[in-house]
Amino acid sequence: MSAAIASRIDEARLWERHMSIARHGATAAGGVNRQALSPEEASARREVTGWASALGLKASTDAAGNFFLRLEGTDPSAAPVLTGSHLDSQPTGGKFDGVYGVLAGLESVEAMIAAKVRPRRSIEIVAWMNEEGSRFVPGMMGSAAFAGAMPLEEILGIRDAAGVSVAEGLAAMKQACPEVPERALGGPVKAYVEAHIEQGPILEREGFTIGIVTGIQGKRTFRVTVTGEEAHAGTSLRRDRKDALLAATQMVQALVAVMHDAEDVVKFTVGRFTVQPNAPSVVPSSVVFSIDLRHPDSAVLQSLGDRIPEICAAQAGPCEVKSEKLTTSMSLEFPPAMRQLIGACAERVGVRSMEILSAAGHDARYLHTVCPTGMIFVPCKDGISHNEAESATASDLADGARVLAEALLELSRD
Amino acid sequence: MSAAIASRIDEARLWERHMSIARHGATAAGGVNRQALSPEEASARREVTGWASALGLKASTDAAGNFFLRLEGTDPSAAPVLTGSHLDSQPTGGKFDGVYGVLAGLESVEAMIAAKVRPRRSIEIVAWMNEEGSRFVPGMMGSAAFAGAMPLEEILGIRDAAGVSVAEGLAAMKQACPEVPERALGGPVKAYVEAHIEQGPILEREGFTIGIVTGIQGKRTFRVTVTGEEAHAGTSLRRDRKDALLAATQMVQALVAVMHDAEDVVKFTVGRFTVQPNAPSVVPSSVVFSIDLRHPDSAVLQSLGDRIPEICAAQAGPCEVKSEKLTTSMSLEFPPAMRQLIGACAERVGVRSMEILSAAGHDARYLHTVCPTGMIFVPCKDGISHNEAESATASDLADGARVLAEALLELSRD
Repeated sequence: MSAAIASRIDEARLWERHMSIARHGATAAGGVNRQALSPEEASARREVTGWASALGLKASTDAAGNFFLRLEGTDPSAAPVLTGSHLDSQPTGGKFDGVYGVLAGLESVEAMIAAKVRPRRSIEIVAWMNEEGSRFVPGMMGSAAFAGAMPLEEILGIRDAAGVSVAEGLAAMKQACPEVPERALGGPVKAYVEAHIEQGPILEREGFTIGIVTGIQGKRTFRVTVTGEEAHAGTSLRRDRKDALLAATQMVQALVAVMHDAEDVVKFTVGRFTVQPNAPSVVPSSVVFSIDLRHPDSAVLQSLGDRIPEICAAQAGPCEVKSEKLTTSMSLEFPPAMRQLIGACAERVGVRSMEILSAAGHDARYLHTVCPTGMIFVPCKDGISHNEAESATASDLADGARVLAEALLELSRD
Repeated sequence: MSAAIASRIDEARLWERHMSIARHGATAAGGVNRQALSPEEASARREVTGWASALGLKASTDAAGNFFLRLEGTDPSAAPVLTGSHLDSQPTGGKFDGVYGVLAGLESVEAMIAAKVRPRRSIEIVAWMNEEGSRFVPGMMGSAAFAGAMPLEEILGIRDAAGVSVAEGLAAMKQACPEVPERALGGPVKAYVEAHIEQGPILEREGFTIGIVTGIQGKRTFRVTVTGEEAHAGTSLRRDRKDALLAATQMVQALVAVMHDAEDVVKFTVGRFTVQPNAPSVVPSSVVFSIDLRHPDSAVLQSLGDRIPEICAAQAGPCEVKSEKLTTSMSLEFPPAMRQLIGACAERVGVRSMEILSAAGHDARYLHTVCPTGMIFVPCKDGISHNEAESATASDLADGARVLAEALLELSRD
């Protein structure tokens, strides 16, 4: 079989589109701040819609704010093939995380159109709502709602740090993109393939262009709330204080000690740590901090996570502490057939591929529960991601899109 | 000598005025959030001005945003006696901290007017700009500028967390209170007496109504900036991470250990701790935290403070750390003559007084460098301050005002 569609992938166009989308929420340091349901995400969606409309694709959105661009197949009633990722970013994110999956999907469809190939099944490019989980916690909300893993009502009520709910964010998005019609949430899907930058150093270090993702490392998230008592920094005695910051810093240090493994496989991160009232001469009354814990072995992940409440309680001193489990995602493995298909497409395109575990979470996690799912990784510079310095090469991005286009064509034929 | 003026102090009026001022920036939990140069502080100033104008006092403000209400003496050219405190609060402050000094001053003057006593020297009630130092760092800015301890130009350029400068805050205050004429910064002062709640538990515990403040405990403040590198919580290896939060929490724990004294005299507080980007799945790239260190012995204060940079540097791990000294205020002692005067006035009024060291800083620190200065403390419930639960009794507030009124009359005669 020849790679007829892959040859139509336009490396320069794909690169230019990344640079163009990076203007929505661009930061001074060369990254992006385009958080979920923000005006910046809305304007990025509008730009992508412009490109897609010119190709005859139809935009739609569902009640969870997921955003779809559909290339109608010759058999419109057949379950579609989905591809995509997300357009939201971390507050100091990069130009490629998420965006690549959406633009590689669009590029694949554009290549098919250029090759005058009309797939039997419709192909839908999707930008899932709030993958990052930085504005609204937890992440991957849109794909979770799509897969029925999280009730829509619960999602709608979640609020950001400023008190704005997801429901209000969705209303703002609707107002910013009024012409996009609504579609039903969920529905049958033939298969899902997500292209993404690796966000780790392995492909680059090993010299491969394509990562055939074997599965996703498990992740558990927690929120720890430490409650003490405000007091005057100059007058209150140490023995009378209930200093929430001292207790919280002790908890973090104790957790770090327990999570330490010589093999450096456990991923333990306290990324958010918010102090009240956060004034220099007031003993802090409360600290809320986040825990992000990951491990490829579900049993280890489970047991390490289960120890968190007891470790925090032991370090609370005169303060009170509440440890809440927010999300648990066990490690998962993608179906061998999807991995074989991606490997075969990489071979057809003529790029070197290797199997790789995803250390990061992706919307593919939830789609995996809905339909046969696979992921394609491309290298990113020095493995740096969730960082304004995140970088990838035009050539690698194009190679990944070539493999994706071939895989989508194959899946949409069946 | 009889306490002729003291008998005119109106306990109910003084209490009502506290409750009335507490409406400006009132919080749901019964405290106030009335930060320096905020619209809430402006409206509090307008209310106080209304009461003062009805008594014939003249309002004015200087280039540092200090706010004065002047009762003209029979000898207007004689250096005035100053009294007052501040109207700004911590973000979750109480109803009495600062406000009491201003309202007790106003009550003293109202008592003189009611007694038809016209002092020789003018008496000026002052609300100093930004005593708290929570919006703009450092605190006591207005009195520092008045005393020439900090150049006005430097103060004007300081910005709050939202990027608003003191100069912009002053312009907003001017716009909110357009009818208040400007006066020169500084000038001769005969004496300064500041009434304040104790903000500690000693008077209440010992059963005294009046604290004759002997001096102010020294204080040093620092800002520590820890710089690491953002990374993805799921993919970055522990050995590659430069986690600013882990380094900062280690620093805090190491500092706590060094500052620990069995006698519980050292006051060490990390009140502000701000993390970037503060997102749950991003390894923190930076933490900025504040240190507030106090000790009544200037030598101990100096040597403990000097150890901070080395302790932080030793805990930095793969991160960079910068420790900046912000302010140093050595311990000070008020003149015996002022303390004796306050003691004599307490005796004349018939309330029990004791000598007490101020553990908190006050604007009196800077006035002490300008003129003979003294302070009068009254008890506050459970020693709780810088807290929305801060409380004091109407009776104690009135007794403090009686002692203040007698002292002011005495000082203004001379």
